[in-house]
Amino acid sequence: MPPFNGWQCGKSQTAPRCLYNHGMLSEFDLIARYFKRPAHRSHAALGIGDDCALLTQEAGMQLAISTDILVEGRHFFTDADPFMLGHKSLAVNLSDLAAMGAEPVAFTLAFSLPGVDEPWLERFSAGLFALADAHRCELVGGDTTKGPLNICITVFGRVPVGEALQRNAALPGDDVWVSGTLGDARLALGALYEEYALPADALAAAAPRLHMPQPRVALGLALRGIAHAALDLSDGLAGDLGHILKASGVGATLEVDALPAGPVLDEQPIERRRLFTLAGGDDYELCFTAPATKRDAVLGAALIANTPVTRVGRIDASPGLRLLDAQGQPLNLHASSYDHFTS
Amino acid sequence: MPPFNGWQCGKSQTAPRCLYNHGMLSEFDLIARYFKRPAHRSHAALGIGDDCALLTQEAGMQLAISTDILVEGRHFFTDADPFMLGHKSLAVNLSDLAAMGAEPVAFTLAFSLPGVDEPWLERFSAGLFALADAHRCELVGGDTTKGPLNICITVFGRVPVGEALQRNAALPGDDVWVSGTLGDARLALGALYEEYALPADALAAAAPRLHMPQPRVALGLALRGIAHAALDLSDGLAGDLGHILKASGVGATLEVDALPAGPVLDEQPIERRRLFTLAGGDDYELCFTAPATKRDAVLGAALIANTPVTRVGRIDASPGLRLLDAQGQPLNLHASSYDHFTS
Repeated sequence: MPPFNGWQCGKSQTAPRCLYNHGMLSEFDLIARYFKRPAHRSHAALGIGDDCALLTQEAGMQLAISTDILVEGRHFFTDADPFMLGHKSLAVNLSDLAAMGAEPVAFTLAFSLPGVDEPWLERFSAGLFALADAHRCELVGGDTTKGPLNICITVFGRVPVGEALQRNAALPGDDVWVSGTLGDARLALGALYEEYALPADALAAAAPRLHMPQPRVALGLALRGIAHAALDLSDGLAGDLGHILKASGVGATLEVDALPAGPVLDEQPIERRRLFTLAGGDDYELCFTAPATKRDAVLGAALIANTPVTRVGRIDASPGLRLLDAQGQPLNLHASSYDHFTS
Repeated sequence: MPPFNGWQCGKSQTAPRCLYNHGMLSEFDLIARYFKRPAHRSHAALGIGDDCALLTQEAGMQLAISTDILVEGRHFFTDADPFMLGHKSLAVNLSDLAAMGAEPVAFTLAFSLPGVDEPWLERFSAGLFALADAHRCELVGGDTTKGPLNICITVFGRVPVGEALQRNAALPGDDVWVSGTLGDARLALGALYEEYALPADALAAAAPRLHMPQPRVALGLALRGIAHAALDLSDGLAGDLGHILKASGVGATLEVDALPAGPVLDEQPIERRRLFTLAGGDDYELCFTAPATKRDAVLGAALIANTPVTRVGRIDASPGLRLLDAQGQPLNLHASSYDHFTS
């Protein structure tokens, strides 16, 4: 275990300094109490406590890196359960690794907090580390400051050179697949915002999809060498698939009524089912393409990963996204993805 | 150049989605316009536009990682010049690489913005990239969302295995050195907060040290194999040196009146000079220790890096930090470092 004497430092501030400690939990105490863990893998040659963490590099491997920032009131409710928030903050990043077929290695955590709320920190770190430990992903550094609550995690994974699942690799004739089910996260969100009412048991069944997404890491790893293109569904299938289409210079046809709705959404009217499976967001399932000749291999990967997958369409040479109903008739839905600066 | 079709995605949000674009600059347009750059080095096998960036790993090297979050009103003024803010956001991270003796490779940028202010974004990205280009450090990914302005950068550097300058490597008998000069950043900050008045020309001379810190990357590289322990001075020499002492299990004696004050601070009363050189913060100079037998090598490294260095004390076996005046008499100053949660 590397010596621990604080977070990775290097902050500046414009507020005049107070040269005396007023007895509150200090930044260093806060880190030591809630974020200091024994190192449990060999990737981190040096963890928390120096100017930088050090990760050992491996010949023949690439390091996959993704960063996400979660802002109070925008990405989570002000009264969000801190355990679930800790989970989700890391889950959305692990989901990006999953979408590349990368194995989680480590992460950094930079966050601002309005103040030191010890019960909150204890629950937040418990949720964060429960998921981190499940994926053997080590916290190697971070930064903590005072400010409006927001959380920035940067995650690191390893993938052999040439095996990463990229967005630009879809080919005409590929099947389009999605993992798990879609739309229950969006359904719960709408109920919480009182767009509509849901029975309490239905909301209770759908809400974990919103608050505790499960990154499809095992599936991403199992799909190496099988899938062509992949990404994770954060902003809604139609919009996210559009990124694959644009990067690959292809189009696609989706069978909208074949999309696997979450069990709660599956009981809803068909218009809502279509909209939320297609443009719901927050699902953190994988969408990927694979050659039609690899259907058995895809199903085998799904078995290995213990993750259901559903074939929902095909990649076409012709650009654009075509939506079909159960009868194969064109559907004209305006379901683009969410954008943070235009809504 | 890797295909560009957006930022690294993977955000969720609690606000109900708007399924139509209202004509504002979208997140993807924003990134394409202000943060899309041609790739100029070989480290990034895949840059902006996929779920993750991919960095090529190298046998025999370690990846140094540091992350910092800068919050409006705490780390910078609300009306901060965006060019200087872009510079400083990256500079404080490059300074962490410098302190490890790591060569900059790449960085990610996650930030929340209250809205799309194109002139602001243009200046911010210009300041950011001017510094990034000077250090051949490539932006490989990020995340953008709406929220209170804050900026989270995670930076990556490379260092041969075993050559990183760590905090735990100081030995009794080592000299203590600092680069450049100390205290002008703190002096400017106090004037901006009206703790005291400074003549306009003095403030103008000192303020660049606060707003445009220059990370000592070249010096950090030149000190590999020469220095024992190192860190960068963000929170003030006394507090930051304390991290080296604690990690190394040693103490130190500093000659306070030998500390190299910035040229503006050097004209100030001795009490202020002592306090701000010792506990000023925001300097982003390096503090390092090296064997007394390596004094010529240290001066040679400083020449190579074109960075002045000053010997300011020595490492002792006995714990604690002892402060001496110019006559070698003990000084009893209470100069601890700034803490974000206790002031």
